[in-house]
This record gives sequence, structure tokens and C-alpha cells, in this order.
Amino acid sequence: MPDKSNPNKTANPWTVLSTQPIYQNRWIRVVEHDVLNPAGKPGIYGVVHMQHIATGVLPIDADGCTTLVGQYRFPLGVYSWEIPEGGGALDEDPLEAVQRELAEETGLMARRWHPLLRMHLSNSVTDEVAHCFLAWDLEQGIAEPEETEDLQVRRVPFREAYDMAMRGDITDAMAVASLMKARLLALDGKLPKDVTALILK
Amino acid sequence: MPDKSNPNKTANPWTVLSTQPIYQNRWIRVVEHDVLNPAGKPGIYGVVHMQHIATGVLPIDADGCTTLVGQYRFPLGVYSWEIPEGGGALDEDPLEAVQRELAEETGLMARRWHPLLRMHLSNSVTDEVAHCFLAWDLEQGIAEPEETEDLQVRRVPFREAYDMAMRGDITDAMAVASLMKARLLALDGKLPKDVTALILK
Repeated sequence: MPDKSNPNKTANPWTVLSTQPIYQNRWIRVVEHDVLNPAGKPGIYGVVHMQHIATGVLPIDADGCTTLVGQYRFPLGVYSWEIPEGGGALDEDPLEAVQRELAEETGLMARRWHPLLRMHLSNSVTDEVAHCFLAWDLEQGIAEPEETEDLQVRRVPFREAYDMAMRGDITDAMAVASLMKARLLALDGKLPKDVTALILK
Repeated sequence: MPDKSNPNKTANPWTVLSTQPIYQNRWIRVVEHDVLNPAGKPGIYGVVHMQHIATGVLPIDADGCTTLVGQYRFPLGVYSWEIPEGGGALDEDPLEAVQRELAEETGLMARRWHPLLRMHLSNSVTDEVAHCFLAWDLEQGIAEPEETEDLQVRRVPFREAYDMAMRGDITDAMAVASLMKARLLALDGKLPKDVTALILK
């Protein structure tokens, strides 16, 4: 892939003339590039570099229930129900990061893991990469959320969470995509039989 | 939804003490807030406000083919195959914006439209909202891409594009989610019969 495309057409058509750092905190780094655009004309490109990878996990328990996390999303000003999500260091193994986040937010540990998704969330402005996993064969421990997180945790049947995503009551891209992909992989026979049965229950 | 949650828990737990504008261009506006976090402790929150809505469209032609658009994504430094995507004014009807973008990038006009997705792409840092649509009953016109866009356009069977998304050859969140949701709506019998037959072909 993409076999039918012209390999010369996939090269970088932008020329960077200069780069100014604009802003940096623990989570983002904003830079502005003076560029020549693909037509060769001068312009600017402001890029938001993420200081972490984004991680998410869809846990499925022995009853076929998943665990949703609710929190107020400050940038949007909305309350959002999602799968457990967090961040990892840019050079960290995404699976280790997501195992830590799952334990912190929900107290859950999982013996079985399956990669679900690697996505670019907002590729016209940011370089954010999301890694999402399916987790099952769970054991319940004690949650230890960070103090910046005012979370609600809710156990619901997978099908109920899937329906929430399909009708737009869950709007977070990582959660929506993870719920849809889990069902599709189950329907397509691409997951182990035990978790397939729990997802399609 | 969410009926089981405590309504008091869905209120904004952050206190904004002051706000500094950091940076602005045609596409983004970065601000830094001095805040008290949900635990009442002082901190900062840098937010990237988008100056446009994000729009995407999954066109399906009479042969059951969709049209993918390839472009170099500058913030990531990768070449990316996606559904036709663009932006609209924050107060613009997303459907009008996406109809214009589809015509510009591919020359396609559609007589039938169905809303696919409304998602928040990166809700820990940005307020970006994406609106994606399914379009069919197509007519081919002449594409007129913007000069900042160095695009390749490729017609492929829906199933091939879906498989690319499922195996990770398409990584853009709006494209991945749209391809998955179109198939799920078709499998679940939630779309008109004509386009269902084309998607499941």
C-alpha cells in the first residue's frame, strides 16, 4: 500500500524556511514554521507537538461488561464518558502506559491484551498518536486516580457502551473507534473465542 | 444518558483564575489558563482552540467504490490516505462545508447524504469537533483543489478501504471511524437499502 500511487507524490511537498518556538508546557509544544506551501508560495504552519502518546483501553470483564470513565473535558467544556484513557512518555511502550492508566483509573488488571488501534487524531494541526488496546481476563484491584482527575467509573454491558458510541452519546474519538473496532473484529472472527463471545453477548 | 451518574459530578470541577492569549493564526488559537485543578490545587491548562470545524465525507459510488485522498500531513511528517476531509467555519452548517470540500477535492457531487459521526478528536488539549457524512448517488464533476493541497485521488472498492483502515494502513481518526461506522450501520440495517447493498458488496 499504496501500490497504485506515484511514489514521488508521497514526498514532503512543503519547504520549511525557518521555525519559531511559540509555547511549551508539560503537555504541548507549539511551533510556527515559515514555509513554502506545495504550490511554492510563502505561508506559515503552526504545529502543536504533543509531549505524550495518547493511550486507551477497552476492558471486557467475565460478564461481558466494560468500564467507562466519566470526566469533565476542560478544553471543550463538556462532560464526557469514555474508555479509560491516559498518556505515556513518547518513548514508552504504549502497552505499559495503558496498563498503568487502567490500574490507576479503574483498579483493573488484565491478563490478556490485544492491540486495537493506532490512529492519528488530528493530523492537520497536531502530531498526536493514539494507541488503543482490548483487555480481558480481568482482576479487580484498587483505583488510584491522579488528583487532577475527578473521575466517575461505570460498569456497563459492552453492547450498551457500543450503542452509546453509535448514537453519539460517546463522542471521544478513541472511545468511539475502539468500541466500533472491537465489535467489527469480533464479527469478523479476528479475536480469540473467549473475548469474542463476551463482546457479542 | 448518563442516568446512573451523579448530576453534581458532571459540573465543571476546574476554576479558571486568569487566561493569557499565547498564539493565533488562521487555524488555531492557543491560550494558557491559570487554574485550580479538581483537587483545588494551582496549575496551568494550555488549550488549543480550533478556528474551524473538521469535516469528512465517505462517498460511495454506483459500483460500491469510495474515493480516497492522499496527502502529506505536515505536522506528522507522513503521507496519509484518508477520506475527503476539510474544514468549515465554526458557525457553518457542516453538511454545506463537506459538500464544498468533496467537490473541491474530488469533483464529486452527491444527491444522498447521511450523517455518520460527530466526534471530539483530541479532547484533553483541543476543542476540535469533527462531522463526518456518508454520501452516495454521485455525479462526477471537475476537482478544484486549493493550492496548499498536493493531493492524489484514488477510487477503490469500499471493502478495500475498510480493510486498509482495519489493518492500520489508514491511520487518520476521521477516516478510520467513518469506514468502520459505515460498515456497522450497514450490518445493523440502519442505512437505506441501496447504499447498504453497495457497502456490503
